Amino acid sequence: MKELQNDRFIRACLRQDVDRTPVWMMRQAGRYLPEYRATRAKAGGFLKLCKTPELACEVTMQPIERFNIDAAILFSDILVIPEAMGMELTFGAGEGPKFPSPLQSHADVEKLPIPDPEDKLGYVMGAVRTICSALDNRIPLIGFAGSPWTLATYMVEGGGSKNFSKVKGMAFTQPKTMHLLLEKLADSVAIYLNAQIANGVRAVQIFDTWGGILSTSDYKEFSLNYMQRIVQQLDRDYEGNKIPVILYSKGGMGWLESIADTGCDVVGLDWSIDIDQARERIGHKVALQGNMDPGMLYASPERIRAEVKDILRRFGHHNGHVFNLGHGITPDVPVENAAAFFKAVQEESAQWHQK
Amino acid sequence: MKELQNDRFIRACLRQDVDRTPVWMMRQAGRYLPEYRATRAKAGGFLKLCKTPELACEVTMQPIERFNIDAAILFSDILVIPEAMGMELTFGAGEGPKFPSPLQSHADVEKLPIPDPEDKLGYVMGAVRTICSALDNRIPLIGFAGSPWTLATYMVEGGGSKNFSKVKGMAFTQPKTMHLLLEKLADSVAIYLNAQIANGVRAVQIFDTWGGILSTSDYKEFSLNYMQRIVQQLDRDYEGNKIPVILYSKGGMGWLESIADTGCDVVGLDWSIDIDQARERIGHKVALQGNMDPGMLYASPERIRAEVKDILRRFGHHNGHVFNLGHGITPDVPVENAAAFFKAVQEESAQWHQK
Repeated sequence: MKELQNDRFIRACLRQDVDRTPVWMMRQAGRYLPEYRATRAKAGGFLKLCKTPELACEVTMQPIERFNIDAAILFSDILVIPEAMGMELTFGAGEGPKFPSPLQSHADVEKLPIPDPEDKLGYVMGAVRTICSALDNRIPLIGFAGSPWTLATYMVEGGGSKNFSKVKGMAFTQPKTMHLLLEKLADSVAIYLNAQIANGVRAVQIFDTWGGILSTSDYKEFSLNYMQRIVQQLDRDYEGNKIPVILYSKGGMGWLESIADTGCDVVGLDWSIDIDQARERIGHKVALQGNMDPGMLYASPERIRAEVKDILRRFGHHNGHVFNLGHGITPDVPVENAAAFFKAVQEESAQWHQK
Repeated sequence: MKELQNDRFIRACLRQDVDRTPVWMMRQAGRYLPEYRATRAKAGGFLKLCKTPELACEVTMQPIERFNIDAAILFSDILVIPEAMGMELTFGAGEGPKFPSPLQSHADVEKLPIPDPEDKLGYVMGAVRTICSALDNRIPLIGFAGSPWTLATYMVEGGGSKNFSKVKGMAFTQPKTMHLLLEKLADSVAIYLNAQIANGVRAVQIFDTWGGILSTSDYKEFSLNYMQRIVQQLDRDYEGNKIPVILYSKGGMGWLESIADTGCDVVGLDWSIDIDQARERIGHKVALQGNMDPGMLYASPERIRAEVKDILRRFGHHNGHVFNLGHGITPDVPVENAAAFFKAVQEESAQWHQK
């Protein structure tokens, strides 16, 4: 691997000195950008966009070309893993993901293979290589996957859910089946993320979108446990480069200490907690990523800047902050407000890194 | 007011001695009960059910007749307040609530009146009196209302929402308009709850379903602030009876200390926090209500009992616990599992109250 021209993001993940706070945005390649909507229309659907490396690269690069951002994130979907395990996956127009044949029995789970990423997910590896080539070591590419629990919710519910009755029903009445599923998913995700690393990503993030629907003991048993299993299996020292691992559990701010204890490098925060409180609770063990309310992007550029300044002030004169939203940017945000967010972090953060 | 035959619920709210832990369930009168579905069909829709005191009484009493429960809760909807303020409200089949003309401008908000509950919400007061007569002082009736912030989300979004773009947009770009709306709602809710008290409810709960979508400072500014304004206006000593006030902010477990500081009697917990942790953080200032994961009702009666025992053990030998779920029971729960929940609390809790 060549040296990065801008390694602020990696350095902040590893709690090293930086000249200013690095910034990226969850879902920065997304529907709020008109050029993204054009490419998706050209691709003929979301899943086709994910499966065509040139187009996945095109949308990954769109925010990088528009704004000054310190990291790119692979354009893909967390549900490519269950699809690679043999489950049919569809995205209806405006409908969200559907698995027409959700998992129901122990036998269903036993049948699931652990997919070879170079074979079954070759299009993702192709996208990683194409994007790395387009980035040309200007900034790092972040790879990602869904947490085992989050993937399991979709695979058992058959899609999104409000009450999570099926997946909780399986966890509480067939715990052996659920644990077998989570083990298989953890191992599949670990192999998949290691393949992303081998193909060029410089950091990885695990998205645990649905850990927050669990109680404390269930979160540890069904979600955190398997994220830790992944962290332990990752190639975190690849060709002399440290590969930072970010864990993000939405709604999991009550369990920050336990998340930090998994051995990850960075804990992603949602916006329900003040970042200074999070730092106080966790200490300097890990870096923190976040955590502006994505809803603040509906405010004016001036208000967005005030909020960015407040978060920087709360974090203070320390190493180990990656600026981000507390969740993904939403489709109806005006592009100029996203621009105002990136600009505010860049202009306001240097003062917090002066010696 | 006559004395209650069973005052366990009130005594626990006030942190007094009880022989066993009182229990009720959010949405205990609801779709999981076949007799509820029959009454709703007879009424010809959800809103008609709310507006017909005899039928609202019928469904309120259904779980009381089926199970051994320590409190009844008024059958109604939080959105009757905005409707009483003049906003058209519809419930389409399986669609959730809709306000076809949501609030958009400062002028829209200025026009809203503070409704006289005996006039505009007379059907609720009629339901309260009818239910109290049916209960005949066997157990207390709990009244309720939505929090101002939660009501505002529906009034500005026009219904349910995923990203809350409109209500956050208004809060962040037109804060004066939002504060005027929240003030009017707080005063409307306070007058409404006082009318419920005058008609016979023995406790009130404020449901803050959507406070948890805010950051810490925004929660305090837009949600908690106005719940406190209500708490201060309530008739909490009515004809010699203490009327306990319960505040429940779903997703607000990061702010427990601030919720307890409003002067409420009881803090309602969702299931994201262990109840012993909550008690440790708050101390004995207030009673706690909760907090089993409603999803645990998809498990077996044995597993439900084990969970109930664990929550009782965590709370330990103290006064001030009202057993409940951490959120409402969902429509697809088997009735026998709800029965198992009530039975487990009744059979397992006495040992924690022995001197």
